[in-house]
Amino acid sequence: MIQVTPLDKSSGQDIQLTIDVKTKPIGALGQLEVLAKKLQLISSQRIKNTNEFVSKEMNPRLTLANPTMLVFAADHGINEEGLSIAPSEVTRQMVLNFLHGGAAINCFCRSNDINLTVVDCGILTAVSSNEIPETATKKLSPRLVEQRLGEGTKNFAKEAAMDEVQVKQGFTFAKKLTEKLISDGIEIILLGEMGIANTSSASALMAALTPYNVEQCVGRGTGISDEQISKKIELINKALQRITPSIPLNDASLLTERQLQVLLSELGGFEIVQMVATILTAASQSIPIVIDGFIVSIAALVAVCMQANVSDYLIFSHVSKEKAHQLLLMEFKKLNSEIDPPLLDLGLRLGEGTGAALALPIIEAAASFYNDMASFTDAGVSV
Amino acid sequence: MIQVTPLDKSSGQDIQLTIDVKTKPIGALGQLEVLAKKLQLISSQRIKNTNEFVSKEMNPRLTLANPTMLVFAADHGINEEGLSIAPSEVTRQMVLNFLHGGAAINCFCRSNDINLTVVDCGILTAVSSNEIPETATKKLSPRLVEQRLGEGTKNFAKEAAMDEVQVKQGFTFAKKLTEKLISDGIEIILLGEMGIANTSSASALMAALTPYNVEQCVGRGTGISDEQISKKIELINKALQRITPSIPLNDASLLTERQLQVLLSELGGFEIVQMVATILTAASQSIPIVIDGFIVSIAALVAVCMQANVSDYLIFSHVSKEKAHQLLLMEFKKLNSEIDPPLLDLGLRLGEGTGAALALPIIEAAASFYNDMASFTDAGVSV
Repeated sequence: MIQVTPLDKSSGQDIQLTIDVKTKPIGALGQLEVLAKKLQLISSQRIKNTNEFVSKEMNPRLTLANPTMLVFAADHGINEEGLSIAPSEVTRQMVLNFLHGGAAINCFCRSNDINLTVVDCGILTAVSSNEIPETATKKLSPRLVEQRLGEGTKNFAKEAAMDEVQVKQGFTFAKKLTEKLISDGIEIILLGEMGIANTSSASALMAALTPYNVEQCVGRGTGISDEQISKKIELINKALQRITPSIPLNDASLLTERQLQVLLSELGGFEIVQMVATILTAASQSIPIVIDGFIVSIAALVAVCMQANVSDYLIFSHVSKEKAHQLLLMEFKKLNSEIDPPLLDLGLRLGEGTGAALALPIIEAAASFYNDMASFTDAGVSV
Repeated sequence: MIQVTPLDKSSGQDIQLTIDVKTKPIGALGQLEVLAKKLQLISSQRIKNTNEFVSKEMNPRLTLANPTMLVFAADHGINEEGLSIAPSEVTRQMVLNFLHGGAAINCFCRSNDINLTVVDCGILTAVSSNEIPETATKKLSPRLVEQRLGEGTKNFAKEAAMDEVQVKQGFTFAKKLTEKLISDGIEIILLGEMGIANTSSASALMAALTPYNVEQCVGRGTGISDEQISKKIELINKALQRITPSIPLNDASLLTERQLQVLLSELGGFEIVQMVATILTAASQSIPIVIDGFIVSIAALVAVCMQANVSDYLIFSHVSKEKAHQLLLMEFKKLNSEIDPPLLDLGLRLGEGTGAALALPIIEAAASFYNDMASFTDAGVSV
């Protein structure tokens, strides 16, 4: 499987010194200083991965070239239970909206100079070539990648959402795409998703992997009724009962990688599976990964459960208005006490990668002050 | 004096409708939706100011052209008491650092495409022309504007920081500069400051204008000792005792505009005075003003006390690590319940306008989704 080496933190003190001699009181840039240090550790690790003989003194510039947002889209069989505000067709309609540049994520990617790639992981009906606008070939226009694992998952309340062959295929697809992007020079990856009813899948995975009960893991998604929430809880509990004979629940540390894959096949979505593999692959190549809201965070949790070192490479962009997302972020903190808090808290509950796209300028600002701020000596400031 | 008309909120429902038909669940963009509505109300007001015959249907695009950061710098006589981590000379050294592009605010302005103008409101010794780098004439290079009210203020623990003529001169300077910037096409103004010991002045003004006691209004600034804090509290209390016979304290609603000017002359700094007038002028012309941390927020409080309608035009960029700033933001909420929470909470405590500069991309993203997101009908999404 994909191996993730831990971040070598031995240069941490040198990096901190570089930050501390800059023309500002020590620590005055708060979370940006923590972020700059983390980005520089990741960047140094990336250089070390490819070159054994790295001079300690070289202290290279921190670069975040070609930031790229991957929006993974798929449909969910459980939506036949009427758990969502929208029919499954809306997933495809929104994919077309992405390709035409009309969605929130398009606006934020344009606003912040982020490349946008939409990955069809298995929406109900594939997009046909004549539906793709001609502009889609231009630079910075959204592009579509097809990595379909099926026509939506099966209803996980009744049976496994997919089989293990599909999980493996999803890993193969996503690994290859991520490797290609990195070899093309992308130095930071942002993740987003689209899939009507995918909060059900995410809540089920959270309930399986954490000590929280199903009630705590279920949110209103993008806005459902009390009745729909009750049904959602009931169906997730039913699915968990099906799984529990073969897989221990509520303590991810007990699970093998194999069992986590089974869990993904039982409760996952095609987009969640591919996000897990993207996160593992990017982390294995020491590329920072910007995590969006609840659904992407669940994919990150599965990746961290598979390879604990993954958490060294994650940047949490925001905490969403979903209570379950707040609990989930606390869970990461338990798994790795060095995980930094999310950068934004703007009451978002949209997904698509919108929180991650909004946080990118802050991440770039951290790199900018690290690279370009003068030291007290350089600037002749007498402190 | 400068008159600020209240924001006409009659088009609020139309704006909300424009937001609500966009391809996202209602309210899913959280604080960005509130921000877009506010920006559009301000923008409509600006059009109304200059043209009485505005069609309700025109619904113009929301623009935020030429975002400009004004960093107001000055020195403070009270620093002779040793209340700060740095000697007053550092104010000038940092002004030179700004002009050479080496400070944090330079990095963030470059990173986010913000023009930077440094306003010398009265640092100890003026910058001479041969100290200004040649690049300062290029586009997006920082430029210097001289609007000096003296060679630093007097020590307000012993006497009034400045006389009322200086306050008036500061208002004249800042009003003229702001009017020039707006007539040059600037549609959003960001504020920052630099002045060793200006937290003392800000804390004193906060203690005079709010119900909080001096202990609550005093922070560690950029990092002073317990002993320095005790002395700071003692000196501010002394200054307040000098003022209280002529000016009622702790309830700004009792103060006339004249009394607020006297308060500024007693406790203010040259940069604070000019920021107050800039905020009033920008608000009077319906230009949104992005507020930075503690010092800029104090200037905003004085401006709001002078003209309550000012608060309609303020965007609070961040809450700093200073406890006093958190209390101060709550005070604005009391004055105007519709004031929105700050956009960022990144543990910053630097000033210079860094928080405001970091928040600009979020403000621009709000305008971007408002202008460019497709409606459900446009995108053919069936919700």
